[in-house]
Amino acid sequence: MNTYTIGIDIGGTNTDIGIVRDDGLIVGRSSIPTDRYNTAETYMEAIATLIQQLLSENNIAQLQGIGIGAPNGNPHTVSIEANTANLRIKTAIPLGYFLGARFGVPVQLDNDANAAAVGEMVYGGAKGMRHFIMLTLGTGVGSGIVVDGRLLHGAHGMAGELGHAIVVPGGRPCSCGRQGCVEMYASARGICQNYREALLKKHPGQTVPEDLTCKFVGESALQGDPVAVEAYDTTARWLGLALANAAAFSEPEAIFLMGGPTRAGEALMGPLRRYFEENLLFLYKGKIKILLSQLVQNDVAILGAAALAHR
Amino acid sequence: MNTYTIGIDIGGTNTDIGIVRDDGLIVGRSSIPTDRYNTAETYMEAIATLIQQLLSENNIAQLQGIGIGAPNGNPHTVSIEANTANLRIKTAIPLGYFLGARFGVPVQLDNDANAAAVGEMVYGGAKGMRHFIMLTLGTGVGSGIVVDGRLLHGAHGMAGELGHAIVVPGGRPCSCGRQGCVEMYASARGICQNYREALLKKHPGQTVPEDLTCKFVGESALQGDPVAVEAYDTTARWLGLALANAAAFSEPEAIFLMGGPTRAGEALMGPLRRYFEENLLFLYKGKIKILLSQLVQNDVAILGAAALAHR
Repeated sequence: MNTYTIGIDIGGTNTDIGIVRDDGLIVGRSSIPTDRYNTAETYMEAIATLIQQLLSENNIAQLQGIGIGAPNGNPHTVSIEANTANLRIKTAIPLGYFLGARFGVPVQLDNDANAAAVGEMVYGGAKGMRHFIMLTLGTGVGSGIVVDGRLLHGAHGMAGELGHAIVVPGGRPCSCGRQGCVEMYASARGICQNYREALLKKHPGQTVPEDLTCKFVGESALQGDPVAVEAYDTTARWLGLALANAAAFSEPEAIFLMGGPTRAGEALMGPLRRYFEENLLFLYKGKIKILLSQLVQNDVAILGAAALAHR
Repeated sequence: MNTYTIGIDIGGTNTDIGIVRDDGLIVGRSSIPTDRYNTAETYMEAIATLIQQLLSENNIAQLQGIGIGAPNGNPHTVSIEANTANLRIKTAIPLGYFLGARFGVPVQLDNDANAAAVGEMVYGGAKGMRHFIMLTLGTGVGSGIVVDGRLLHGAHGMAGELGHAIVVPGGRPCSCGRQGCVEMYASARGICQNYREALLKKHPGQTVPEDLTCKFVGESALQGDPVAVEAYDTTARWLGLALANAAAFSEPEAIFLMGGPTRAGEALMGPLRRYFEENLLFLYKGKIKILLSQLVQNDVAILGAAALAHR
């Protein structure tokens, strides 16, 4: 008999909720607009109502658990921390306790990159792996690190901020207040910046499109546009160095990448693998795989959240 | 009643062996010259004979276990790998199995930095800590990483090479074949190089002492010599950056340092703490301690090795 868990992916704009069967199939899903709610109470109530509705529609009487992936999600307090940058609600959101009390099942909550790592381990390409790193490229660069088959949470649940490893001392100013973080070269914003710099170098005086998107840069790179190819080469150079340093830390079997900027496929992965190997300590050369997530982009956040409930 | 373990610290020149009481007191110790032995067999036999002799001299009839710290020690095979740089014997040395068979007790073997980390956890300043990093500064820079109270070994027992994290892209050539590794700025050799560069900058044309040692640089820095102070400042700058990046990986409670170069005390630790905090992501600021090992320099290697046997 199949069992079911709820996966909840919280973003600044939408909150996506899915019912996930134990084999990883999402049997029902729906969403509510996160940014329409003013208070933690009304928001949590809306989530509970939607879960109830999904369970009824799919004739599911029994849940195994609920998993939640959220920006600034704290696994220790099972809550979203107060003053989270992307959320309209500025108080803490004690969603773990709220849903646990409402549905009488275990609730796990973690930050979105950690949820993605667990999703890859339970349903994706990291099945059976005990040591790997998941890198999520998007507006920022997040990471989830798995050591001995378990998420590395650190002393206060804040480990795994590889996007804020400094790879270019004195480099681009980062929103965190420091300079030269990986995120400034490998996030969607960073890739656009790489593109602008490459364009001005190759064609001085040319106007940079105002509505430049990472999607455009990725598609141009796949079509062989030299400026876009160079933009991705810059990303690959610094990301390759950062991942080689990360490898010397935890010696993973593989490093997975997911998120919008990875849609450029080989335009990113080709040079990334090359720079990674170049920067890798001889002990590890040829032994650590750089892989794309094997989960469908649309499903990964819900699957990752649901997978947390399996912990 | 007290219990006893044997701690063995293997270096290229000497092999130190101690009997360690459960409270961390070394009740007996002796050593043999590692570099006098041609084969693994004669070397292992000499170690076993010396252990037997120490047990007799101290009237100890029962051992809890044996722990061994060694360069290139592989915890999975309980052996020293073949072709270890600093050892005269170039075959693998299956010391774990040999001593296990001879004395009928469990034997643990690991690389020296991991042994030092476990020593700090069992007998030193990391008692009760679940997340910390031990950095060993010496000829090279080694590291042992503890996550959730356990050594991080990685996929094949080779995790924790923080000395070979690249902090200065395109920087000093390292013996590993790459450029800009932490080791080139924070090892004894690196500190001497910092001193030479600072001296030539401040006093162009001045001859650098041929027999320059890290000990001399450390003592000069403690006495306020501006060249030596600048040499340690350079070490602190790059080591502080590397440790801030390491903190973003595993969010430790503390980072410990040990080894010859740390004898410079505040001449190293003062600027190191400053650069570390400067480079730290805001999430971690003020929360992670940079500490000197609390084990006596002379004892740490034997205690660390003995502590492995407690695992």
